[in-house]
Amino acid sequence: MSEVIATYRLPGAKGSFEKKAEGIALGLTVGSWTDLPQLEQEQLLKFKGRVASINEEAGEGVGEISIAYPGRNYSNDLPAILTTVFGKLSLDGQVKLINLEFSDDLNRHYPGPRYGIEGIRELAGVKDRPLLMSIFKGVIGRDLAYMEDQLRAQARGGVDLVKDDEILFDNPLTPFYERVKNGRRILDEVQQETGKRTLYAVNLTGRTSELREKARRARELGADALLFNVFSYSLDVLQELREDENIGLPLMAHPAFAGAVAQAPHHGVAYSLWLGKFLRMTGADFSLFPSPYGSVALEKDQVLAISRELTDEPSPFKKTFPVPSAGIHPGLVPHLMEDFGEGCVINAGGGVHGHPGGAESGGLAFRQAIEAVKAGIPLEEVQGEELRVALSLWSKGGKG
Amino acid sequence: MSEVIATYRLPGAKGSFEKKAEGIALGLTVGSWTDLPQLEQEQLLKFKGRVASINEEAGEGVGEISIAYPGRNYSNDLPAILTTVFGKLSLDGQVKLINLEFSDDLNRHYPGPRYGIEGIRELAGVKDRPLLMSIFKGVIGRDLAYMEDQLRAQARGGVDLVKDDEILFDNPLTPFYERVKNGRRILDEVQQETGKRTLYAVNLTGRTSELREKARRARELGADALLFNVFSYSLDVLQELREDENIGLPLMAHPAFAGAVAQAPHHGVAYSLWLGKFLRMTGADFSLFPSPYGSVALEKDQVLAISRELTDEPSPFKKTFPVPSAGIHPGLVPHLMEDFGEGCVINAGGGVHGHPGGAESGGLAFRQAIEAVKAGIPLEEVQGEELRVALSLWSKGGKG
Repeated sequence: MSEVIATYRLPGAKGSFEKKAEGIALGLTVGSWTDLPQLEQEQLLKFKGRVASINEEAGEGVGEISIAYPGRNYSNDLPAILTTVFGKLSLDGQVKLINLEFSDDLNRHYPGPRYGIEGIRELAGVKDRPLLMSIFKGVIGRDLAYMEDQLRAQARGGVDLVKDDEILFDNPLTPFYERVKNGRRILDEVQQETGKRTLYAVNLTGRTSELREKARRARELGADALLFNVFSYSLDVLQELREDENIGLPLMAHPAFAGAVAQAPHHGVAYSLWLGKFLRMTGADFSLFPSPYGSVALEKDQVLAISRELTDEPSPFKKTFPVPSAGIHPGLVPHLMEDFGEGCVINAGGGVHGHPGGAESGGLAFRQAIEAVKAGIPLEEVQGEELRVALSLWSKGGKG
Repeated sequence: MSEVIATYRLPGAKGSFEKKAEGIALGLTVGSWTDLPQLEQEQLLKFKGRVASINEEAGEGVGEISIAYPGRNYSNDLPAILTTVFGKLSLDGQVKLINLEFSDDLNRHYPGPRYGIEGIRELAGVKDRPLLMSIFKGVIGRDLAYMEDQLRAQARGGVDLVKDDEILFDNPLTPFYERVKNGRRILDEVQQETGKRTLYAVNLTGRTSELREKARRARELGADALLFNVFSYSLDVLQELREDENIGLPLMAHPAFAGAVAQAPHHGVAYSLWLGKFLRMTGADFSLFPSPYGSVALEKDQVLAISRELTDEPSPFKKTFPVPSAGIHPGLVPHLMEDFGEGCVINAGGGVHGHPGGAESGGLAFRQAIEAVKAGIPLEEVQGEELRVALSLWSKGGKG
């Protein structure tokens, strides 16, 4: 049957959830029911919400209810679906939207990632280890030459990807198109030196209606990938970037502002849906989120739930790369690879730039850590000088 | 100075807020500071965030801090500003964004309402009382004839505006353009009968990139106003609808999904900013929100704070109509007019349609209540039959 099943967690006494669930199922679809004539009930039955399940024991004084919303009630776009399943309801006291299940026919309206984990691995030329990404640091108020030096150092350290800081917008000192062109030139130069191709994700910003044209032009100028603050725009805008065949670039979803919707314990939308399922459906090739280990941290079960939504199979969609982030240093690589296996991107800012030997050494230290974990060697036993220095710095409680 | 000052409420012990504030001011702008050479500090000073104020006594164990973010750090659009002031920070434990103050030069980048309260009053032909709006009810699964009958009855009851249900999307039974055309025809007919012009706000829905063209076409077909689920899209999309001179229609912002960001007590964004200041800046002529009295209710101080942001002067923007909603029946009119004065829209669904005499009588009952309050007459003393019946029904605890 064509439907979306929404699951909500909300407080209530045992025995109270069925009435609540029936009220939602009716109120958010056909409105009233018992007072309708028989003939109208028959006509409206296929539009009526249905209580799919009730779990009265989800926690102390907390229940979970699942409501099925018929697909014919809304158009096949997330703004319509969010309005249906959590429009009015989001305003109604304490209630959290924890999952949406789309029937197969509805899933077909969403593109999923264009590249996915396998496609990104081909672009990066990396088959059998986590990818390594680093982030420009302290670039606000700096010029192109400053960014070029940083990019060169990061690439020489052997990182697979470099991303813009999400708070770097189009600006006179480092304009968007200039960043794309310079990034291309420098990464070509480093590739000639080292043989290693590093990809650069430039931050796509500006007014909503200008994004697609900017993205197309960025591709023409040689952009490798687009970083996108999807939650300051909307999931539908991300999906439109994904669907545009004239863009065709890998899309990296940044979680900026996602916490405004997902961080509260009893309100809003669960992280697993917001940064997990929705980003995979709408076409992000990468989903960044705070790791359980760093300065800004999510709980481990939240992080693993996001990761599952990004990579579980079977799925109609390609896999999205989980990118645990924030405060990552080389000493955390064993933890990240235990949690996420090889199918993740290890993403570091301060953990690369803060290396006493500079960003190039910072990248090398991470690469040494990844190789050691793959080989089953404890980090402390690794011979690499860069890793040894990094472990010494960050084991003292330094901030990655 | 060109800047946005963001105010956050967050937990902490007394004496802890200054360090926290300094960390945000640096971390979300230039990154590091004390370890920079003197020359670089001088160059970066104009990009550095500034702690504008600290209030350590905002509540028990709660403080408020205000950070000024220089205007040169971001482009002049809300996605960039939200990313800057509440991007990473939204993910960082317990913190609520309670206000943004824009310097005058930045405010100039936002359009404000095209019509505003005064312009809407001219369109509606109503000078000196609250406007009255009613909502289509139970229209999912129904056809155009059903909606036509409802529209005619509502208009005959003397309501100033009728709005679509926000969960009615573009669909085969009642397609968007057909609703526009039929609405126009029927409201013209009623105007010929009664002399009263009722305006119809049609729900603008679909994929983001199609909205503007749909809105332009709706205007050509005679649409009066557009209802828009802005929070299932984004504030920037609302602003682009407002700025498009080929649309030029009144915009009615529905709060669907707004609670996902604003409902939690210690996370997300305050209602006064989300449904108040932002909607006025970006150009909503109407902002709907739950009243303190109905089935889905906000707290009274939240509601009044929203209303102040929509209407306070001086302001660079026209005023946005506050539209307290949800569970409104005629007996609540005195409360609403005490809270909001004449400068609001009284908005009812069940409170119009649920009248024993039908929607036409429901509208008349509200109009009688409004006239009574204006004349200083207690509702119980009003002679109008429709109002008497309504009061009798809803004083028994019936649901508006």
